[in-house]
Amino acid sequence: MVTLGKSRIEALSDGVFAIAMTLLVLKLEVPEHQHSNDEMLAQILALRPQFLTYVVTFLIAGGFWFLHHLTFHFIRHVNAFLVWVNLLYLMFVSLLPFSAGLMGHLQKHPVSQLFYFGNMLAIALLLNLHWHYARRKDFIVDTDPEEATRIGYRLGLTAVAFSICMVSAVLSPDYSWVPLWLFVFGFLIERVRRRRRR
Amino acid sequence: MVTLGKSRIEALSDGVFAIAMTLLVLKLEVPEHQHSNDEMLAQILALRPQFLTYVVTFLIAGGFWFLHHLTFHFIRHVNAFLVWVNLLYLMFVSLLPFSAGLMGHLQKHPVSQLFYFGNMLAIALLLNLHWHYARRKDFIVDTDPEEATRIGYRLGLTAVAFSICMVSAVLSPDYSWVPLWLFVFGFLIERVRRRRRR
Amino acid sequence: MVTLGKSRIEALSDGVFAIAMTLLVLKLEVPEHQHSNDEMLAQILALRPQFLTYVVTFLIAGGFWFLHHLTFHFIRHVNAFLVWVNLLYLMFVSLLPFSAGLMGHLQKHPVSQLFYFGNMLAIALLLNLHWHYARRKDFIVDTDPEEATRIGYRLGLTAVAFSICMVSAVLSPDYSWVPLWLFVFGFLIERVRRRRRR
Amino acid sequence: MVTLGKSRIEALSDGVFAIAMTLLVLKLEVPEHQHSNDEMLAQILALRPQFLTYVVTFLIAGGFWFLHHLTFHFIRHVNAFLVWVNLLYLMFVSLLPFSAGLMGHLQKHPVSQLFYFGNMLAIALLLNLHWHYARRKDFIVDTDPEEATRIGYRLGLTAVAFSICMVSAVLSPDYSWVPLWLFVFGFLIERVRRRRRR
Repeated sequence: MVTLGKSRIEALSDGVFAIAMTLLVLKLEVPEHQHSNDEMLAQILALRPQFLTYVVTFLIAGGFWFLHHLTFHFIRHVNAFLVWVNLLYLMFVSLLPFSAGLMGHLQKHPVSQLFYFGNMLAIALLLNLHWHYARRKDFIVDTDPEEATRIGYRLGLTAVAFSICMVSAVLSPDYSWVPLWLFVFGFLIERVRRRRRR
Repeated sequence: MVTLGKSRIEALSDGVFAIAMTLLVLKLEVPEHQHSNDEMLAQILALRPQFLTYVVTFLIAGGFWFLHHLTFHFIRHVNAFLVWVNLLYLMFVSLLPFSAGLMGHLQKHPVSQLFYFGNMLAIALLLNLHWHYARRKDFIVDTDPEEATRIGYRLGLTAVAFSICMVSAVLSPDYSWVPLWLFVFGFLIERVRRRRRR
Repeated sequence: MVTLGKSRIEALSDGVFAIAMTLLVLKLEVPEHQHSNDEMLAQILALRPQFLTYVVTFLIAGGFWFLHHLTFHFIRHVNAFLVWVNLLYLMFVSLLPFSAGLMGHLQKHPVSQLFYFGNMLAIALLLNLHWHYARRKDFIVDTDPEEATRIGYRLGLTAVAFSICMVSAVLSPDYSWVPLWLFVFGFLIERVRRRRRR
Repeated sequence: MVTLGKSRIEALSDGVFAIAMTLLVLKLEVPEHQHSNDEMLAQILALRPQFLTYVVTFLIAGGFWFLHHLTFHFIRHVNAFLVWVNLLYLMFVSLLPFSAGLMGHLQKHPVSQLFYFGNMLAIALLLNLHWHYARRKDFIVDTDPEEATRIGYRLGLTAVAFSICMVSAVLSPDYSWVPLWLFVFGFLIERVRRRRRR
């Protein structure tokens, strides 16, 4: 079977990420007509949920890009199966502007939250599949198995966090984001502790 | 005549593919106003044909990107003629969001199906032309002529599949997708069989 | 003064070209509502001027990308001045979807033609400036001065062709494209003749 | 801690810049319907503030891209912290089409000016943070500390210029751009003088 270089799949991925992340801005609609200064301020302030969604989605997407970057840092080459997993992964990344649009307009609805977190979960699961397949097929550059295990662990936690978000979106949509913040917070604390230990 | 490196044509191609694939999402319109939860669910479910078109078009485009990747893996360098074939190829790739928009809104019309499959066929034919010209001009890295023949064969089948889709779009628009599924299915079976043989 | 590598300016350029070329498709509006088959065919046929503009603009942009590629093939490195010429160049490339939109809707108006050809002329002139500055500053890889001269000559002709188009847009807007076709035609003939001579 | 190569963060950045800069053109709306020639000219002339905003924003964004390019020219590799600073930086870059949209429609309002210059200031500050962190962590290729200091100085001035713009947007919105022009002008003079001295 042909093993392909990874540079072009990286280029396509970087492109899709860059575009999906930049298209998020199109969900922020510019107040169109001439207004008084106060009216305009009010209009911009009314966009707060959309701004919040923009920032959060951009950063989550950035996090997925970073994890993608990190895993490919250790992957030597790919095969057809990995390319297709990657394409599915990118399909869900490129769906983000739609999910963010739902979330921005209708933040408190379980339906939009389920769609949004479901999109994130699909991305996370495909990244897990990608990584574990690559490890089992021995496509990983053999440096530091401990690091590889730590990445697998981190990818798994990401999927868990978004699963819990989905559950809490059904149970109490007002607090569905809380598990995500706890996850991020725990990660930062863990990171600081690990650095101190060294 | 100047022979050019292939890295920049690859970069432009990856860019056009990434954008065309990500612009597909703009055809999914976010329900705009505040609704009840049920109403919103109904609206999202009403987008089913667009979602289906999104997924299928993304994957077909991903497949064409993969074939492009695969052929360029074996191409050493390009000349002016190949650059222009490539640009025409990208012109049809970048038309995909339009064709997908037609398909998403008007799935059962022969006109939109002919346009959609015609777009795919044009991409497939230009990729065939690209490959056969490169082989005849000896621009291919000389590894494994059997592999090269297999790629040519696969590209040809892609063109055949979309031609049959066009014919069936005229004859029975309700089943025009069937030839494509048969083709994909056949390809997967062939693949599994070939792997077992080894 | 710092001399910079050329890879990132190439990456930015490829990105801007890919996006500008792909955004052209957004000027093709998908007929939105459910129609009879005949009505839909009529609507698509009514888009003919937009399709024509799409194809022609995509190919002209592709041609400029190719010339950019060709000149950078011979440029060793860049300095701050060249980066800024390049950014201005990209500014006009990224204006293409707007100019194409004008042209697509209002093909026979001298105003839209002047805008469109003026956009093309600006791109051509900046590419000329770029090339001649790079040659004078000795940023060119020293292979084959004859080839370098031929490129300069070709770039000059491009600017001339679009200047003539602008003049003819004022004099007789119905035939303003003719000089461009003559130019392309002459170029192809010249090419065939040069190949025969060898 | 893992140190990552810089090529992919450069690729993502080039992508985001290319898209944000090209999306600016979508704020220029094409006059849609068939008009007389004079009417059309009037409509295009009425777009003057948007054109001005397009050109200025494209060039400022180009300047930030150039500074990003310049700093990365000297950065050897990155770590997780720098990646996140970069992602925040790109988040504000990708917000530019929105800010430019505000500015284009409502140029004389303090609110839109504060938003616009605030966006620019955020980009400038994050670039300063990026550079100084990279220097302190010794991620810089050790060539010419004087050059490194000069870049730090230039980045600092950029932040100062946009801060002054914000102040003047509140005090006298009609002249809020003046500090920026003075800054650019001063920079060009400084440059010419430095070249003469050598």
